[in-house]
Amino acid sequence: MSSVDGVGTKLKIADALDKHDTVGIDIVNHCVNDILTCGAEPLFFLDYIGIGKLVPEKAGAIAQGLAQACREVGCALIGGETAEMPGLYTGEDYDLVGFIIGVVEKEKIIVGKTIAVGDTVIGLPSGGLHTSGYSLVRKIFGESPSALNTHYTELDRTLGEELLEPHRGYYHQVKPLLPLVRGIAHITGGGLVGNVPRVLPQGVAAQFHSQSWAIPPIFQLIQQRGNVDRDEMYRVFNMGIGMVLICSPDNTERVIKASPEAHIIGEVVKQADEARVIIK
Amino acid sequence: MSSVDGVGTKLKIADALDKHDTVGIDIVNHCVNDILTCGAEPLFFLDYIGIGKLVPEKAGAIAQGLAQACREVGCALIGGETAEMPGLYTGEDYDLVGFIIGVVEKEKIIVGKTIAVGDTVIGLPSGGLHTSGYSLVRKIFGESPSALNTHYTELDRTLGEELLEPHRGYYHQVKPLLPLVRGIAHITGGGLVGNVPRVLPQGVAAQFHSQSWAIPPIFQLIQQRGNVDRDEMYRVFNMGIGMVLICSPDNTERVIKASPEAHIIGEVVKQADEARVIIK
Repeated sequence: MSSVDGVGTKLKIADALDKHDTVGIDIVNHCVNDILTCGAEPLFFLDYIGIGKLVPEKAGAIAQGLAQACREVGCALIGGETAEMPGLYTGEDYDLVGFIIGVVEKEKIIVGKTIAVGDTVIGLPSGGLHTSGYSLVRKIFGESPSALNTHYTELDRTLGEELLEPHRGYYHQVKPLLPLVRGIAHITGGGLVGNVPRVLPQGVAAQFHSQSWAIPPIFQLIQQRGNVDRDEMYRVFNMGIGMVLICSPDNTERVIKASPEAHIIGEVVKQADEARVIIK
Repeated sequence: MSSVDGVGTKLKIADALDKHDTVGIDIVNHCVNDILTCGAEPLFFLDYIGIGKLVPEKAGAIAQGLAQACREVGCALIGGETAEMPGLYTGEDYDLVGFIIGVVEKEKIIVGKTIAVGDTVIGLPSGGLHTSGYSLVRKIFGESPSALNTHYTELDRTLGEELLEPHRGYYHQVKPLLPLVRGIAHITGGGLVGNVPRVLPQGVAAQFHSQSWAIPPIFQLIQQRGNVDRDEMYRVFNMGIGMVLICSPDNTERVIKASPEAHIIGEVVKQADEARVIIK
């Protein structure tokens, strides 16, 4: 099991604030969550940094985040490459890419094919935007230090602090639940609408009750300031749900009991039209 | 065994000429050669493309090169990620990163520790610059279409065609030689001087006889036009040697016979001073 991912334009926020110790956490957790959706445990991680001009303090801060997040899930940080390419990356801009290898026994691979009408849809809370929607956020708020350093009462911190909140890793929380679930979706770019259908078999849809979980204040702030319509919000952002687990009604109680953060947020229904994800 | 690498600023040449079907070959062969230095066979490959704005024809051409090169070595192209980041990559600029996993039996890993004074240093010819030295080349020649489309008699083609010549893959040629060699170095950024020492045990140096192989015309052209001194040429470019194999005197004839392109280009000597690589 393997995955490759970039941090995306969250890096532009890190650059604007010159704070680089969290993006390494972002990319490791993103990759770990990605392979966790199949039931895989992380084994090895490698990183690639493409950068205009190497600044040792910056590279050190990135590496610190990578190492910390790898250590937390027992994944070996086995290598990486830092390429200085002044012609490609402007100034201190950089791109950060992660590659992960994990392992899962063949008969334990989770692919969602046994998901059936009546199954429970469970959500695990996100820690904020994770690594999705930053292009839209930057369009709305800009990326000037003054915009990012503005304190918002509803966030109880600055916008920049909120936006750099690391992508949460769900490995320890989800691992004990793996035998109990039929499908797992990691909610990244594309939101619930873009990520949940991948795990659904033909003929069924996932119906979410948006009132059943608390949408974090950052999403309300973005929606108001950017005058973004509701559908687009759900297409771009995770809206407070970092991982979706789907299990049989029989296992629902065990999943909820085993994971204090888990909430029932919907159910699997018969597919009525084109829509694979319905948000009520 | 794994490796992660980027194509580097060779991509700027591909962009300037809008020709993207060779860079995929470059990155696959670069990665395959990297793990081949330990004796590893390629198993899986993943790619990452970071790009300002996705152009389907461009992505298609890149993917075609990746697929072709993977097929040639029986490596599975198991996935990849294309990230559109207009804020990070300017216009049609992109970065291409490859990640490879290979396998080698523990007792067959080649690490160079048995290399001894008197061993033979064998070179395999490169196909040109491979993926190293492009920043210097771009400084000397620029990257305008007119500079790149200039025909050079000594190259028998245009500068751009020469510069986009793919990084050669040595897998099929080197695989049968693995039981016969004590050390292998892939000559990438840093040239012979930067790459050969990694494989040498303490107390020995590699002595090269630069008259023993034909330095391809492109390197002479670069040296003349850029007025680059000889030492720098050997520090930046492969100078016509893509892979270096080190074997015992006993095995030399067998290696040379098995690989028609292989030439003796030097020998292992006692280390006399700081220098681990001597170019005569």
